[in-house]
Amino acid sequence: MAIKKGLFITIEGPDGSGKSTQIERLKTYFKEKTYPVIFTREPGGTKISEKIRTLILDKENREMADLTEAFLYAASRAQLVAEVIGPAIDRGEIVICDRFLDSGIAYQGYGRELGDCVRAINEYAVQGYMPDLTLLMHIDPQTGRARMKERSLDRIEDEQQAFHQRVYEGYLQLEREYDRFVGVNADDSVEAISKALIGHIEALMRERGFL
Amino acid sequence: MAIKKGLFITIEGPDGSGKSTQIERLKTYFKEKTYPVIFTREPGGTKISEKIRTLILDKENREMADLTEAFLYAASRAQLVAEVIGPAIDRGEIVICDRFLDSGIAYQGYGRELGDCVRAINEYAVQGYMPDLTLLMHIDPQTGRARMKERSLDRIEDEQQAFHQRVYEGYLQLEREYDRFVGVNADDSVEAISKALIGHIEALMRERGFL
Repeated sequence: MAIKKGLFITIEGPDGSGKSTQIERLKTYFKEKTYPVIFTREPGGTKISEKIRTLILDKENREMADLTEAFLYAASRAQLVAEVIGPAIDRGEIVICDRFLDSGIAYQGYGRELGDCVRAINEYAVQGYMPDLTLLMHIDPQTGRARMKERSLDRIEDEQQAFHQRVYEGYLQLEREYDRFVGVNADDSVEAISKALIGHIEALMRERGFL
Repeated sequence: MAIKKGLFITIEGPDGSGKSTQIERLKTYFKEKTYPVIFTREPGGTKISEKIRTLILDKENREMADLTEAFLYAASRAQLVAEVIGPAIDRGEIVICDRFLDSGIAYQGYGRELGDCVRAINEYAVQGYMPDLTLLMHIDPQTGRARMKERSLDRIEDEQQAFHQRVYEGYLQLEREYDRFVGVNADDSVEAISKALIGHIEALMRERGFL
């Protein structure tokens, strides 16, 4: 287990939960602050991980086996931890990551119904760098899907409703299991959600002596 | 565990052990036979796996973390099993694969010194399809390397001598552990090695009622 000096915060939720909008707002908010906050995302976040992301999300690759998908996410995650998250945490910085291992468990473990092997694989991928706080956007998956219908969807987003329902149930299961989870109502106004997220992040920062 | 009807044979060995030459000869030999023999390779063997192969072997990706490499090989392997090896074995066919999970354990577990996590990851990747016979080309890694100096080397082949020494020791360790291993002296003439490989393969085919 790595000795952690920084703070590691992940933002999770189903597609269409407004995660991206909120992360843009967090970036703006933290840009004006003096403490070092690094934003990154999954899959992706490094040159190699972005190449893996392209492979995963490309609709051309429709014959991809579920287990292949799980390993590719793990590969992307391992690279992001090795290159970005691990070094930043070790330097004492604050990392906010758009999706992390809980997405792996929710999407591949529950959504693809691969079960516990996804947890085992991800244990290796994160190399001891577990989130201190995971903010989960609560939204009915059907509402989330409806919000996305204007967008062109990638290979995962394009899955059927039953898949997205399982993903969301996976998230709720993880939230029941781990104390690091805090739920946020994604049906609230953008402003209210923003305020809630910043509130939870700054509470942790205060608790750990960053504020 | 999958119920196996076919035969699964893997050919393993360090770089420069003459594996490729031998596999070409095996292809020619079995082409004239009436029983169904499928040849495939790792990493690669499917459209998606070949894309992953490109990612792994590209010298551009020199910052690739060892664990990322291990997961990418597992992803390629999982796809090959799902698309090619599994279905062929289930149909009762004979599959001969150039490298498989033992390469993963030898190269990432021993060569990269990632240890036992590589075995665990690969257990998932092979989905119960374990080789019935693994033919290991025995060659001193230094001799193997010397044979390759005319070629342009990929990211893995280009590793230093100590890496290739650990890989070879990994192979020998696996050979001691598993009965399915049979060693072949790769210092023999091409003709003699060919004869030895065919002999071992046909012995197994006879034993299992394929001949």
